[in-house]
Amino acid sequence: MTAASRYTYLGPEGTFTEAALRTLPEAATRELVPMISVPAALDAVRSGEAAGALVPIENSVEGGVTATVDELASGRPLMIYREVLLPIAFALLVRPGTTINDIKTVTGHPVAQPQVRGWLERFLPEAHWESAASNADGARLVQEGRFDAAFAGEFAAPTYGLEPLVTDIHDAHNATTRFVLVGRPARPAAPTGADKTSMVLWLRDDHPGALLEVLQEYATCGVNLVRIESRPTGRGIGQYSFSVDCEGHVSDRRVGEALMGLKRLCSDLRFLGSYPRYDQVEPRVVAGTADADFLRASDWLTRCLDGRLNESDGRAGG
Amino acid sequence: MTAASRYTYLGPEGTFTEAALRTLPEAATRELVPMISVPAALDAVRSGEAAGALVPIENSVEGGVTATVDELASGRPLMIYREVLLPIAFALLVRPGTTINDIKTVTGHPVAQPQVRGWLERFLPEAHWESAASNADGARLVQEGRFDAAFAGEFAAPTYGLEPLVTDIHDAHNATTRFVLVGRPARPAAPTGADKTSMVLWLRDDHPGALLEVLQEYATCGVNLVRIESRPTGRGIGQYSFSVDCEGHVSDRRVGEALMGLKRLCSDLRFLGSYPRYDQVEPRVVAGTADADFLRASDWLTRCLDGRLNESDGRAGG
Amino acid sequence: MTAASRYTYLGPEGTFTEAALRTLPEAATRELVPMISVPAALDAVRSGEAAGALVPIENSVEGGVTATVDELASGRPLMIYREVLLPIAFALLVRPGTTINDIKTVTGHPVAQPQVRGWLERFLPEAHWESAASNADGARLVQEGRFDAAFAGEFAAPTYGLEPLVTDIHDAHNATTRFVLVGRPARPAAPTGADKTSMVLWLRDDHPGALLEVLQEYATCGVNLVRIESRPTGRGIGQYSFSVDCEGHVSDRRVGEALMGLKRLCSDLRFLGSYPRYDQVEPRVVAGTADADFLRASDWLTRCLDGRLNESDGRAGG
Amino acid sequence: MTAASRYTYLGPEGTFTEAALRTLPEAATRELVPMISVPAALDAVRSGEAAGALVPIENSVEGGVTATVDELASGRPLMIYREVLLPIAFALLVRPGTTINDIKTVTGHPVAQPQVRGWLERFLPEAHWESAASNADGARLVQEGRFDAAFAGEFAAPTYGLEPLVTDIHDAHNATTRFVLVGRPARPAAPTGADKTSMVLWLRDDHPGALLEVLQEYATCGVNLVRIESRPTGRGIGQYSFSVDCEGHVSDRRVGEALMGLKRLCSDLRFLGSYPRYDQVEPRVVAGTADADFLRASDWLTRCLDGRLNESDGRAGG
Repeated sequence: MTAASRYTYLGPEGTFTEAALRTLPEAATRELVPMISVPAALDAVRSGEAAGALVPIENSVEGGVTATVDELASGRPLMIYREVLLPIAFALLVRPGTTINDIKTVTGHPVAQPQVRGWLERFLPEAHWESAASNADGARLVQEGRFDAAFAGEFAAPTYGLEPLVTDIHDAHNATTRFVLVGRPARPAAPTGADKTSMVLWLRDDHPGALLEVLQEYATCGVNLVRIESRPTGRGIGQYSFSVDCEGHVSDRRVGEALMGLKRLCSDLRFLGSYPRYDQVEPRVVAGTADADFLRASDWLTRCLDGRLNESDGRAGG
Repeated sequence: MTAASRYTYLGPEGTFTEAALRTLPEAATRELVPMISVPAALDAVRSGEAAGALVPIENSVEGGVTATVDELASGRPLMIYREVLLPIAFALLVRPGTTINDIKTVTGHPVAQPQVRGWLERFLPEAHWESAASNADGARLVQEGRFDAAFAGEFAAPTYGLEPLVTDIHDAHNATTRFVLVGRPARPAAPTGADKTSMVLWLRDDHPGALLEVLQEYATCGVNLVRIESRPTGRGIGQYSFSVDCEGHVSDRRVGEALMGLKRLCSDLRFLGSYPRYDQVEPRVVAGTADADFLRASDWLTRCLDGRLNESDGRAGG
Repeated sequence: MTAASRYTYLGPEGTFTEAALRTLPEAATRELVPMISVPAALDAVRSGEAAGALVPIENSVEGGVTATVDELASGRPLMIYREVLLPIAFALLVRPGTTINDIKTVTGHPVAQPQVRGWLERFLPEAHWESAASNADGARLVQEGRFDAAFAGEFAAPTYGLEPLVTDIHDAHNATTRFVLVGRPARPAAPTGADKTSMVLWLRDDHPGALLEVLQEYATCGVNLVRIESRPTGRGIGQYSFSVDCEGHVSDRRVGEALMGLKRLCSDLRFLGSYPRYDQVEPRVVAGTADADFLRASDWLTRCLDGRLNESDGRAGG
Repeated sequence: MTAASRYTYLGPEGTFTEAALRTLPEAATRELVPMISVPAALDAVRSGEAAGALVPIENSVEGGVTATVDELASGRPLMIYREVLLPIAFALLVRPGTTINDIKTVTGHPVAQPQVRGWLERFLPEAHWESAASNADGARLVQEGRFDAAFAGEFAAPTYGLEPLVTDIHDAHNATTRFVLVGRPARPAAPTGADKTSMVLWLRDDHPGALLEVLQEYATCGVNLVRIESRPTGRGIGQYSFSVDCEGHVSDRRVGEALMGLKRLCSDLRFLGSYPRYDQVEPRVVAGTADADFLRASDWLTRCLDGRLNESDGRAGG
């Protein structure tokens, strides 16, 4: 297979990321390559070795997946083309024959730990937790005998010769992880009417109210935010960038207008793509912010500039 | 002379408006026609009988000249092409031979009255005031013997065979009247770098915060207001339109952007022209709101839409 | 009668102001004294010669009555205790025997003129208008034979021996004038649940956005504006104060909070009273801005300061 | 020693947290107890077994330490009494005799990994990274021979019989971790003039603009933010709480005012303490937001309510 038909993902095999990737129809015809880390998965796209990469970006319990958020904000530009939401429930995987009373040590991805902490306190209060590089890697360590049990997706069991002792473990109801399919910058997919636009912005300086101005820019254009996450810029405590998802598609006039306003307002702005919302929720369009309103306003301004104002302009006040 | 070379003004002869009109260089080559009222002066422009009309629009003591503000907001569209500021000081005009002790009745334009009220209380506390249709008309009534004295511009004295008994009367320091030269809609004059843009706007509905949103629109675009005046719409107590002057020229991107935003936000917006500021004060341009910033943002958005983002886009956060 | 039982009003007898005053129940037991001007009516209150003064403050066609707005904003403090709304319709008063074809000259208060302009254009296009000091004064001038007809309230006819030739004249539908009963500062009347609070505010300086901050202060406290009127401060073109009416009573926590915020934010703030709304419309109270919300927040802050936070504080996020 | 003199911290011994704790003068007279996790350290305080706990809360490279941020936001209320900033630089710890060429496997805390990633790519591109439960735990694993090298604080070397092969490793300049000393709720420490106030807030609902209103509340009171971090509420993708630090002390009127406003505005608000800023930077106090301004405004409102307005109130506009 060629690079054009290769997708990387945060591996190893048997992770939730692989499960999420396999929900995409085109995954059936792609070569799916597990990578050791989010940066590795994304770098394969940057270098042209892969056409896309599926990586987790947000978790309803743990928040932003910082490796992904930060990688998308720096380095050679990438773009998001698709999002996938996957409900997260863990299985406790053990070597065949292990009972709950045998379990002295457990492992799993650090992100999994807070999602099963409550369960552990109730059912395995004495068990010693040690983090693994991934949930699947935890399963491998159980296979090797280094730990007694691993939290992972139930689907990972066969790969490592384990069996699920307990399934559907999750402290929080509705625990969900959001994954994004990332590629090199290109023309965004056509708008579907229920789209999301992602970006990263850096405030011009740290004057009080800089973030307020940014939010005002969205509000003025009638663009609703669906996610805002502050990230340190690495330049010292108190210096942040903001990773933002908003409703709508870059080709919607109100979104384009907001983006241009932010481009002027911020010290920097990185466009990360417009793509269909997984939940297919359509945006609430405030009066005066539909495409037609923007076109009318633009046409009217042209008439003002050309001296072609007529009877029907500014009539309502008559 | 033809209509094209005719200017009307708020008459009669001898008013401050005529004095203001004569400060314009082109007045020397125009036929200057006094009209009985602001609506009459403006209607002559609307009907094509005159090329322009000079009318007072704002007074630093009394506020908006409502006849002008309301006439510009309704009826066939007109545009402002020039503004003139004239310091206002009154003379007390009397028939030759009259002394201060002879004065029992005084007259003048209703707008003049509050500007000389303090002077009257000190020097003519017993005199009876009655309003005249204009300051010049008051002078005429003194000439006819109907009143003992009239407040008017000193320049009006010879026209009516009167003499100035006291000059330079003004309760407030810096009393100034602002006049505008109004014509039919056409391409605005070229920007000078120190311009003003006028408009009237009607809030979409009376939801609390509608005016706040309007002011936010200017602020988001970095456009400063120099005047805002509420006017009843005539549809009942509590229904207002707003007459607004802002810094900048409609061809400045930040002004055009604000106008388009207001066009979308308001139930109606009437553009009243961009013209040189009389005081030649240049606008303060906030970072990110220069024309170049708008062009860069627009160019960047085009690259986002076309999939042509490159290394240098969104680099600062790298 | 004593000063305590004396009410002044903008005279002369037969004006709309007198008609409005007579709608107040207590007017029956007061001595009602017409004054020559708004300042004179108010000064009688300031000096203690009268207990109250009824003056027009706002007209749905012409906007603010500047004499009243400016007088309340300057000089010794006064307070508004009551408002009255009166629908405005004019009668054309003539000497008995006059027909419409006899009318060559008409008079009336300058404020009346724009309210009957349309009628005049249709029915008396040739008639010459000249302003009078008041509508009632215009009636007097007709009585004296100086004019052929006067626009005034129909109720003024008998006083001047005139008769109404045409009644119910008003260009605008719903033309209404709002009057206020003004007294010396004292404890405001008890809240009725449908109150209004009036004030005048001066922006600290003319930085762009100063008015925006003022409006934001009201919005943050959930206080809706019902009127905002800009007035020149008399210190030069471009320097304004704002006369504001808002929903609610000064004893409502959200109104008090807004007033304190404005007191801090503005260079000056003059409280002009809280009084029952004539239309008895109750305010829309936004979530979190009821008195109970303010008390809870204040109680909670005290617990924060005293170190008495308990289980139930900040629980929802648990 | 008693619980009152016991401080827990995020262990094990030899972590940066211990190093930060030892910078506090009182640490010399306290029993310092390492705990296995942030929740364990904080629970010891909640249960009364310890008087305080020192835990990391923010890292200039990795952002918020989510375990700490989330623990403070939920469960029985705690308060922050002190903050400590510690520059972070890693040493590569090895068993005596190990050379750089011997290193095939490295370990360290997951948070350390992105801070040394660049160094690893340059100097140990082939080394396999596996996460440890803490930096100190990584050192222990090296001591036990499970890994060849561990990233940890240089000070951890002797505890584990290791030696620093390379020191002062940090990809980002100015990498700093911020730690907080947490106790049970009590009266906050007296203000020092350079204080910080921490809180967690939950938006009332997810209406667009809810976060904008929150930021506006701070702005209206003149309170600057120094940190804002969004955290998922665990109720599904798109539901956030915000962890906020602002300038000033809860006993500053402008901070108290902002807190009360937020208490009303938000569905919930948890106060997390006011404490001295480690950097001793004093807040910028905007005109009108000093304590004296609040007192003057409050005094003035009382006079409005009591009817005791006098000559000097609202004078500037006179």
